[in-house]
Amino acid sequence: MIDALFGSGLSRAVDGVFADAIRAMNDTDCIRVAVDIPSGLRADEPSSGQIVKADHTISFQTPKLAFLFPSHHKFVGEWHVLDIGLDKDFIRKQDVSHFVLTSRDIRKRLKTRSTYDHKGNYGHVLLVSGSYGKTGATVLSARAALRSGVGLLTVCVPSCGYVVLQSSVPEAMVLADPNERVISSIPELEKYSAIGVGPGLGQSGETVKALQSLLEQSKKPLVIDADGLNIIAEHRNLMHLVPAGSILTPHPKEFERIVGRWSNDFERLDKQIDLARQLNSVIVLKGAFTSIAAPDGGVYFNPTGNPGMATGGTGDVLTGILTGLMGQGYNCQEAAIVGVYLHGLAGDLAASDLGFESLIASDIIAYLPAAFQKIRNSGKKNQRHF
Amino acid sequence: MIDALFGSGLSRAVDGVFADAIRAMNDTDCIRVAVDIPSGLRADEPSSGQIVKADHTISFQTPKLAFLFPSHHKFVGEWHVLDIGLDKDFIRKQDVSHFVLTSRDIRKRLKTRSTYDHKGNYGHVLLVSGSYGKTGATVLSARAALRSGVGLLTVCVPSCGYVVLQSSVPEAMVLADPNERVISSIPELEKYSAIGVGPGLGQSGETVKALQSLLEQSKKPLVIDADGLNIIAEHRNLMHLVPAGSILTPHPKEFERIVGRWSNDFERLDKQIDLARQLNSVIVLKGAFTSIAAPDGGVYFNPTGNPGMATGGTGDVLTGILTGLMGQGYNCQEAAIVGVYLHGLAGDLAASDLGFESLIASDIIAYLPAAFQKIRNSGKKNQRHF
Amino acid sequence: MIDALFGSGLSRAVDGVFADAIRAMNDTDCIRVAVDIPSGLRADEPSSGQIVKADHTISFQTPKLAFLFPSHHKFVGEWHVLDIGLDKDFIRKQDVSHFVLTSRDIRKRLKTRSTYDHKGNYGHVLLVSGSYGKTGATVLSARAALRSGVGLLTVCVPSCGYVVLQSSVPEAMVLADPNERVISSIPELEKYSAIGVGPGLGQSGETVKALQSLLEQSKKPLVIDADGLNIIAEHRNLMHLVPAGSILTPHPKEFERIVGRWSNDFERLDKQIDLARQLNSVIVLKGAFTSIAAPDGGVYFNPTGNPGMATGGTGDVLTGILTGLMGQGYNCQEAAIVGVYLHGLAGDLAASDLGFESLIASDIIAYLPAAFQKIRNSGKKNQRHF
Amino acid sequence: MIDALFGSGLSRAVDGVFADAIRAMNDTDCIRVAVDIPSGLRADEPSSGQIVKADHTISFQTPKLAFLFPSHHKFVGEWHVLDIGLDKDFIRKQDVSHFVLTSRDIRKRLKTRSTYDHKGNYGHVLLVSGSYGKTGATVLSARAALRSGVGLLTVCVPSCGYVVLQSSVPEAMVLADPNERVISSIPELEKYSAIGVGPGLGQSGETVKALQSLLEQSKKPLVIDADGLNIIAEHRNLMHLVPAGSILTPHPKEFERIVGRWSNDFERLDKQIDLARQLNSVIVLKGAFTSIAAPDGGVYFNPTGNPGMATGGTGDVLTGILTGLMGQGYNCQEAAIVGVYLHGLAGDLAASDLGFESLIASDIIAYLPAAFQKIRNSGKKNQRHF
Repeated sequence: MIDALFGSGLSRAVDGVFADAIRAMNDTDCIRVAVDIPSGLRADEPSSGQIVKADHTISFQTPKLAFLFPSHHKFVGEWHVLDIGLDKDFIRKQDVSHFVLTSRDIRKRLKTRSTYDHKGNYGHVLLVSGSYGKTGATVLSARAALRSGVGLLTVCVPSCGYVVLQSSVPEAMVLADPNERVISSIPELEKYSAIGVGPGLGQSGETVKALQSLLEQSKKPLVIDADGLNIIAEHRNLMHLVPAGSILTPHPKEFERIVGRWSNDFERLDKQIDLARQLNSVIVLKGAFTSIAAPDGGVYFNPTGNPGMATGGTGDVLTGILTGLMGQGYNCQEAAIVGVYLHGLAGDLAASDLGFESLIASDIIAYLPAAFQKIRNSGKKNQRHF
Repeated sequence: MIDALFGSGLSRAVDGVFADAIRAMNDTDCIRVAVDIPSGLRADEPSSGQIVKADHTISFQTPKLAFLFPSHHKFVGEWHVLDIGLDKDFIRKQDVSHFVLTSRDIRKRLKTRSTYDHKGNYGHVLLVSGSYGKTGATVLSARAALRSGVGLLTVCVPSCGYVVLQSSVPEAMVLADPNERVISSIPELEKYSAIGVGPGLGQSGETVKALQSLLEQSKKPLVIDADGLNIIAEHRNLMHLVPAGSILTPHPKEFERIVGRWSNDFERLDKQIDLARQLNSVIVLKGAFTSIAAPDGGVYFNPTGNPGMATGGTGDVLTGILTGLMGQGYNCQEAAIVGVYLHGLAGDLAASDLGFESLIASDIIAYLPAAFQKIRNSGKKNQRHF
Repeated sequence: MIDALFGSGLSRAVDGVFADAIRAMNDTDCIRVAVDIPSGLRADEPSSGQIVKADHTISFQTPKLAFLFPSHHKFVGEWHVLDIGLDKDFIRKQDVSHFVLTSRDIRKRLKTRSTYDHKGNYGHVLLVSGSYGKTGATVLSARAALRSGVGLLTVCVPSCGYVVLQSSVPEAMVLADPNERVISSIPELEKYSAIGVGPGLGQSGETVKALQSLLEQSKKPLVIDADGLNIIAEHRNLMHLVPAGSILTPHPKEFERIVGRWSNDFERLDKQIDLARQLNSVIVLKGAFTSIAAPDGGVYFNPTGNPGMATGGTGDVLTGILTGLMGQGYNCQEAAIVGVYLHGLAGDLAASDLGFESLIASDIIAYLPAAFQKIRNSGKKNQRHF
Repeated sequence: MIDALFGSGLSRAVDGVFADAIRAMNDTDCIRVAVDIPSGLRADEPSSGQIVKADHTISFQTPKLAFLFPSHHKFVGEWHVLDIGLDKDFIRKQDVSHFVLTSRDIRKRLKTRSTYDHKGNYGHVLLVSGSYGKTGATVLSARAALRSGVGLLTVCVPSCGYVVLQSSVPEAMVLADPNERVISSIPELEKYSAIGVGPGLGQSGETVKALQSLLEQSKKPLVIDADGLNIIAEHRNLMHLVPAGSILTPHPKEFERIVGRWSNDFERLDKQIDLARQLNSVIVLKGAFTSIAAPDGGVYFNPTGNPGMATGGTGDVLTGILTGLMGQGYNCQEAAIVGVYLHGLAGDLAASDLGFESLIASDIIAYLPAAFQKIRNSGKKNQRHF
């Protein structure tokens, strides 16, 4: 975890002649390069006043926290980090709680497999997903869970998804809900080592009740995504039922439905940390530099991924990966760190072959094996993947 | 847009001894090569009288307009253009409105993606497509839209297509029409950034009404293809409802149903330009050297594509691509230029691996990533793909 | 067509001391190699008496007819042909009617495609196929027809095959028979350029009537396979309805049901030739060295193919290929020659990658593009593929 | 079969000062390497007392039996065998009944195919499999049977699997059980050359009766797996109906249901050998180093396979392979030896490309062609694959 994030930066807004200078610079047609940090931008707090709008920012040793927020993109542009030989032990000892993940962080968390392991060692996962017209989400989650290493997979879908799932994912067992169009009930949960819920669920009354029943019965942590989150945001009484040790994976709009508005990205981060503490769970806020807030206050920013992944179904794939990892015995923090990084890395490998436009969610599943292999091989060659 | 089309050519029909000479030449068994233009053929107007039937035509700097028409193939044969160093600035300044597309034209129109883009940046597209026995067309359009870079895709099919779509295209959401066999109604349209309509629709009474309703409600431009066009040709009162900024993609027979017969390809081109002006939309007339007529009178001929693409479903793929591009914010002219070229280029890359006979529509989708990559890479190496 | 088949051979059975010698040779444990032809075997007529059982036979210039019959395999073993420089013009001028196909024969028959060709140029094919539990045959035929270059494909299946076909072959249009389980009726046939009938049909009463109706209405030649043939064998009154210029593709058991038993492979060949003359159609008798009997008495033996193709569905693939070729304007004799050779070559290319055991019918379709390419490229390099 | 297993080892438990020494060694943090066999472990009998917990064991010429048991993994660690030049003829002549398979054992058992073979030569196999929610198992078994070289395949599934099977495995014919959700009846069995039963069956009353009927009617040996085994374990009266020459493929839990508990792996092996003798059938006990017990008392340990294969559906794939091989005329012992080895080798080839986590059951089918090819090619190059 060598990429701790810390930085000095200015303590107040730029004004006066300096502000005029920045304004003038921003008005030119030139390519602007900032060194360390764009003038006027604060590394660890909200900024105000004039700020240089750099096309490129060259920083040292570690990126600044501010670089990782969408709202700063117009100031920071594309950023680059140079290793200037600062003492790494010193960095490691700093009392920081914000980190950028590296492939080494993933590699050392990956479980190894033993010759005599059997299906039981890798868990039996349940996915609760789908509604009429949205069972494709279930297919994507299921395939991703399987490619993440789970031992057994059972999928709970409305009856309308029965043929779809059995045709598309022969490795999965299917529990068809008696309801044709929506999830209306929850099976016995005891035998499952992890449960993922949310993709394509919809928010019908039956499904709200089913989710409540799932939250009440589950003694194991959950991965909750998409409409699972939207239902909880609408029915706040469900919030306290979320089992400790779960993973919630909102995108910014879903997050806003849960925690309300924020005035800037620092506040958004605080809300994320607060929610993680409150639920004693991991909150994965999806986007560029997805942030993973752990219950202990630690935040992990993910450097993998690309705008080609901004396409329908990639979130369902992440849910499958995270549930698959939880099922194999990764705890919520490990699963989120490993899963989010792998998901983005698979997307990067796919984009490198297919380009941004043509990348679809299924490609991320198809490149998941290569992502696992790349992490493992990076260890062998002692290469560092950022 | 360096390949402006212009040419001098003869001003009158060949007759007398010259006609006899041409007749004699055409009767020989030799391979005939024309230089500049086959004698007797007029570059910019319909020809009459005797015309040399060349096997090959070698022309200079830019092809002549006449080379791009099917009816002239027997005179022009295979044509080749030599760069003889004519001043390109001079060419560019000519007041011409006919162009042959190059890969550079596509590359400079391709939108770039930014780190912080999310699904919303790439639009939510609706495809209205399919009828009993023709939902395969919907599958092809949907897959093509996804591989073209759209953020979210919803597909509206008759109920008979429900399992087909959910099994075949898990990334798409499905709105199943209450009617089992045909599209009979149109969903709320507000959230969609672009709409494609036509592939596999059939022309049932219910569907005619549904299309009328779609045309009346849509505030956004459409991509209209196949039976969407046939219905409009049959129900002329729908014509004026086509939203400005749409793309219509007829093949010659569908075009004839809309505009009536033409006596020669120049007249056909005029009718195409007129229709584009009248509807304030782009008319894509499909075939070899597909012509794209813009509302401003400009016509763009597409050099990519091959006879292996003369197989069922390739038009459905084009509809998906165009709708996907419109959904991402390309206007109708940009989408038509970029989409038609990419569609043909993907077909060319597929044919190079698979041959003409074995090429099927799905292959064009499979080679779409390579087509995007080829365009982008041609920029890096500064190569020109014709 | 350089591999005309002719040979001298013995005119009578071996007996006496020669027979004893052969018997003794056959009793040894050695590897036996025959030169020209195994002693005792007659090249062009049924043999009797003692015959050497060779492991290998090395023959000159052209194989003997007798080498191509299953019942002689135990005598001929693996056979090899050496070019000893016999005058090829002389060979070509012999009045022979038995030929072994070469890739050159296929290459020169392959139609070329022209820039301005459209879907209509490559025909609209109808496949009539399938019954409850056997619609997989329809899927295989349909995919093979598409990969053979057809312009448009419509598939007529019982309703139980509707979702199967639309999900598996999106490029095909589907006409679902009102009967859930079997084909019971025939659509309007006028628009189709070729029709294939038989794979997976079953032999229900409804289907017998439907086939009769098809035979009565069709003005175009058919490709008839599998249960299409079995029905005709059972209902001899249908035989005279087979349109001239059709292709029948029996395997030996189906052939026997039509023409009765044979006492040796020469008689079998005579029966095949007679049937071709009688129906004025091509009879393709499937097996190793598939024989293609034309109405003019010519017989073409196919050297491609391998025992890995002895697996369910490969016949359905051949039906699709032949129908696809007929639809593009190949006549029955051309289609049979080109299609049978390509089918076997695709199987050979597949087996070379996958081995005999693992080869399945779908692989032949997947390697069809490579087979077309190999034929075309063999021309470019002037290589001869036997 | 050169890797006969035999060894001397200690004849009594370690105690006293030696036990203290071992305890001390096991308490250190060092990597422990055992030579020949970890001290305290007995090669051919249950061990007691202190045993060295080696990380690696280096043994000579052949592995010891004890190395192949899961319960000894913590003592043996990763084991390696060095060829020290012991006389192989001597080894071969020992009266041992435990063997580790080598690729040579497989290669020499693989049947070769002859030019004139047809579908009939490779058998017609029946799979009886599937229940509501578990028809994916049927898909996997069916695909595996086809890729193993069977001539024809018929699959018997509950009606709910009809569309699933026809869409997923077009090469298979489907017999849909009249019951929607479970197998309730058995078709005529005469035409099938081998029958596989079990994957995904469930254990409903109807299916118990159907299995009983199958066992009573079948004159041919069966492959029995999964719920087929569980039903027999529950209904002991069915046990004696298992036809001689069958293959049973339990995993340890299924095996325990049949034979009861064991106190150590040697006893487990004895129970396996006993059951094989009692049923006059092959018992394949699945796991790392899958053991194959033949009716003659011979036991074959399989060295291929890896923990990536501990994922849902790999057992169904094995059932398909074994049934496919039986259908082609391999007897139960040959089929088990060849099939288990190929299954594991395909998994190893898949894992080498995809890694352990991402490997799913379908991958084993996809790599089956490569496994066959690797066995065959190992012969050509005279390489030995362990």
